[in-house]
Amino acid sequence: MRILLDVMGGDLPPGELVAGGVAAGCRYSIDILFVGDPEMIRTALGGLGETAGGRFEVVPSSEVIRMDDSPVRAVREKKDSSLLVGLAALKSGIADAFVSPGNTGAVVAGSLFTLGRVPGIPRPGLLAVLPSLRNQDFLVIDVGANADCAPEHLEAFALMGASYARSVLEIAHPTVGLLNIGEEDTKGNRVANETFAILRDGPLPFTGNVEPHLLLTERPVDVVVCDGFVGNIFLKSIEGGISAFSTLLKRSVLRNALTKAGAFLLRRSFADMRQVFSYKRRGGAPLLGVNGVVVIAHGRSDAEAIGGAIDVARRQAEANLTKRLSKGLEGWALDGG
Amino acid sequence: MRILLDVMGGDLPPGELVAGGVAAGCRYSIDILFVGDPEMIRTALGGLGETAGGRFEVVPSSEVIRMDDSPVRAVREKKDSSLLVGLAALKSGIADAFVSPGNTGAVVAGSLFTLGRVPGIPRPGLLAVLPSLRNQDFLVIDVGANADCAPEHLEAFALMGASYARSVLEIAHPTVGLLNIGEEDTKGNRVANETFAILRDGPLPFTGNVEPHLLLTERPVDVVVCDGFVGNIFLKSIEGGISAFSTLLKRSVLRNALTKAGAFLLRRSFADMRQVFSYKRRGGAPLLGVNGVVVIAHGRSDAEAIGGAIDVARRQAEANLTKRLSKGLEGWALDGG
Repeated sequence: MRILLDVMGGDLPPGELVAGGVAAGCRYSIDILFVGDPEMIRTALGGLGETAGGRFEVVPSSEVIRMDDSPVRAVREKKDSSLLVGLAALKSGIADAFVSPGNTGAVVAGSLFTLGRVPGIPRPGLLAVLPSLRNQDFLVIDVGANADCAPEHLEAFALMGASYARSVLEIAHPTVGLLNIGEEDTKGNRVANETFAILRDGPLPFTGNVEPHLLLTERPVDVVVCDGFVGNIFLKSIEGGISAFSTLLKRSVLRNALTKAGAFLLRRSFADMRQVFSYKRRGGAPLLGVNGVVVIAHGRSDAEAIGGAIDVARRQAEANLTKRLSKGLEGWALDGG
Repeated sequence: MRILLDVMGGDLPPGELVAGGVAAGCRYSIDILFVGDPEMIRTALGGLGETAGGRFEVVPSSEVIRMDDSPVRAVREKKDSSLLVGLAALKSGIADAFVSPGNTGAVVAGSLFTLGRVPGIPRPGLLAVLPSLRNQDFLVIDVGANADCAPEHLEAFALMGASYARSVLEIAHPTVGLLNIGEEDTKGNRVANETFAILRDGPLPFTGNVEPHLLLTERPVDVVVCDGFVGNIFLKSIEGGISAFSTLLKRSVLRNALTKAGAFLLRRSFADMRQVFSYKRRGGAPLLGVNGVVVIAHGRSDAEAIGGAIDVARRQAEANLTKRLSKGLEGWALDGG
């Protein structure tokens, strides 16, 4: 297994991402191909007592796509960016997957441009793996690859999410729900209503509408489907609720000696919370529906988070999801899902 | 001041809502007109040592619109429901405001049907008042009155939210942001992009896009504008994040004697958190843009929450918001907002 890692596009310096790549390469016994400024990468490897060659290789690039670059223009103009060089290397077949902590829009545009779509999939979808209080994660797709979606795009997201659940998470009979503002069949906007009708009449294991406030606590389904605008709002709102609560708690806990003592006794509990809700543990969001394994890591990814993203990419590449997706809805029906 | 209270449409029994109305009537020295089954209301009043007549009156109705009734059909068929009887009483001018804990869709449809729209406002918008860690609440509109919106509807929501902030919350120079998936001007879906252009070029105090994860902690603006589908997803996702975090914390805290002791020392902190994030404190969501003061309380409202909703209605009626809204965008520009 060989995984390409873009070490230039994130918020943190390349050295931090190289460190994450080296740790993951050793942990999973896989090769890591670092894409970026060769001097920086060699220096970072040297600092870790490693050299290029063998398990760790350097794929040189001279440009960087920034977080605030316009995705389409950047993909058109920065041909020697770590993002496009990495994607071209993936396309050439020298590696099994590509991980980037870069500009999400640029990774989506670059992947479409370089790799193309899986036949039968009209739009790629970004998949998020979220924690639940039922001791099992669940999936949400699309969380930001497409701001405007038609119902047939959501149908493809459902197929991709269910296929990922089965192939990568090994859930034999995954269920799919539609993110909506009420549980009743007729709730929601036009796109939700039309998607509901398509999923209800299709071969996928669709159980109906699901509401956002119950997902983390109840985990009613394995896969939640939505358009990329709504999915991104959902993700960031969940994050906002959790961060407001924990910030307020922190503030309140520092009030006096007694509350500080209370916090000390609860330090394990607080650490558990951070662990459950940490994006680092889950690592990266796979971009499904493009012809190749592409995982988008959080822009703020440090070494630990990059390790998580590499693990996500590794597991997807092993499951050979792209081949399964190319069989489409018909393939799902034949599999007896 | 006289406020109509629908005591039939909520999840809790009428007696609970009558208790909330009586407490609020006494606290604010206002008259409460209870709409619903006259026997139930009289019994509940009697149990509280009150009688109908004077401060508390009974407006009899024989039907109830349930939470799972289809809004449009219910409004067409249940003419003697507490909802429609209450709205007709408001329309007749015998009271200044109407509060209902009922089916949101039915309250919206019934209000449009009975009261009509404020001239110049194309769609009513449901306004939520949310807490922030900056010690000041902020507003979100629309949180569920309209599942499908055009950009000009969002412009009207912006006008209504800003007018509410100025008239009711007495914020002299309120700011307005557009709920979006990124801060850059070009982010978002088609509706967001077009709304951005309209607000940027209009007279309202628009500051740009705002992202959901920062709203509760940073409170970047006074008023957040979005379509009703996205706004409802936002609200329920925030709630989901907070509820997952607090549930997990509760579970973790009950693990052993030491963590229980820690929780005891932090009991004031936990109570503070509940207080900040409690929907009861904020009470109800005003339905702005209809010809009259209508406040939708949470379906699960108990006496305390109903008291909060009555307070919201009372303050809006005092501010004479409907008159200000009828001046439209031009009125805002003339006011020198």
